Amino acid sequence: MIEVRALVFDVFGTVVDWRSGVAREAARLLGSGVDAEGLADAWRGAYLPSMDRVRRGELPWTGLDQLHRASLDELLPAFGAADADEATRAELVLAWHRLDPWPDSVAGLTRLKARYIIASLSNGNVSLLVDMAKHGGLPWDTVLSAELFGHYKPDPETYDGAARLLGLLPEQVVMVAAHLDDLAAARARGLRTAYVHRPDEGGPGTDPARSDEEADVSVSSLEELAGHLGA
Amino acid sequence: MIEVRALVFDVFGTVVDWRSGVAREAARLLGSGVDAEGLADAWRGAYLPSMDRVRRGELPWTGLDQLHRASLDELLPAFGAADADEATRAELVLAWHRLDPWPDSVAGLTRLKARYIIASLSNGNVSLLVDMAKHGGLPWDTVLSAELFGHYKPDPETYDGAARLLGLLPEQVVMVAAHLDDLAAARARGLRTAYVHRPDEGGPGTDPARSDEEADVSVSSLEELAGHLGA
Repeated sequence: MIEVRALVFDVFGTVVDWRSGVAREAARLLGSGVDAEGLADAWRGAYLPSMDRVRRGELPWTGLDQLHRASLDELLPAFGAADADEATRAELVLAWHRLDPWPDSVAGLTRLKARYIIASLSNGNVSLLVDMAKHGGLPWDTVLSAELFGHYKPDPETYDGAARLLGLLPEQVVMVAAHLDDLAAARARGLRTAYVHRPDEGGPGTDPARSDEEADVSVSSLEELAGHLGA
Repeated sequence: MIEVRALVFDVFGTVVDWRSGVAREAARLLGSGVDAEGLADAWRGAYLPSMDRVRRGELPWTGLDQLHRASLDELLPAFGAADADEATRAELVLAWHRLDPWPDSVAGLTRLKARYIIASLSNGNVSLLVDMAKHGGLPWDTVLSAELFGHYKPDPETYDGAARLLGLLPEQVVMVAAHLDDLAAARARGLRTAYVHRPDEGGPGTDPARSDEEADVSVSSLEELAGHLGA
């Protein structure tokens, strides 16, 4: 069996808690009159459709910061914040750069880094991922981003590109994510897969799968993943 | 004056000692009958001409590992090592992945990282730079490489691309290098520049400039650079 050399991580929801972080910044910047968690959910809800416009070729390559800004501008009126000024909107987009890690993330990544190459493989743009790593102390060996490939996950170019840049065969790389579709797409390109159960990602009423039967392993934290991989 | 946010580093010669590391591996893999330091110098001598073939469009994009391998194959007969086998040649190319940092590099980078974004900006391919960082404990926030831009330094696409991926204006980025031509090319694209005097890079008989009069600062170590930048 070919040895695993690297792990690449989905970030939003898998490594960091986007919902609390975005809601906190929305409350701070827009005031207590705004439904901050509702805005966070609606903003995240616009994520896939906005990337799909790029993936289908309706938009040329557009970075996630710009997609986030366009979605925000569309959403603010429905949340009673149509009068938010330019500086507030720009600052709110940067909320996605300052998301906090889940409590197990830094400890788990630090253990995994001692034995494996660890990198993000996120739809966030490079500067977002660099800022986030500095904010939360995420110890990436390097940042890999959809931006480097001009394709958003789950396009195959992202998984192929990660293995290529790391100089590895797909089966030497594990994709780690809290989302079944990301893992299925990675498996289709020959990567190994690890599912992380993140029950708090989406807030009340969401109930992500306990495990991914197709994945090589399913865990509840990155520390558990480190233990499973001997790190 | 616009604030500096990031430093990007040339690697070979500026952060790591290529000559000692390549010579050590050549001696180990080819035996004591080979002039290991001579081979290291000749191999490095083939570096610019081989990249220039890519830069002039005579070759399609070719990563540095592959260029190193082609140069090695050309050089080995002159060093009495024409009979080196495939495994030895492949292993010797990886010597460039395992170069040791100069004694001040890790301490200087660690200090700089606390205040600034720090990234490589090297002609080495991504996997080479990731391996080197793990080998030597180089604490990059992310690895930036010519490979991401499909252009070798000193092509302008590399300097422009680094600022773009970091989401910064060119004047918010400092190029750090021990080579005047790299810094001149970075300045031409609007980056700030810091020269590092590395008298031992090229071995006996080489005598690099003490300072770069055009640079914003000239230093003798990355720790001195950290002090200069308040880190």
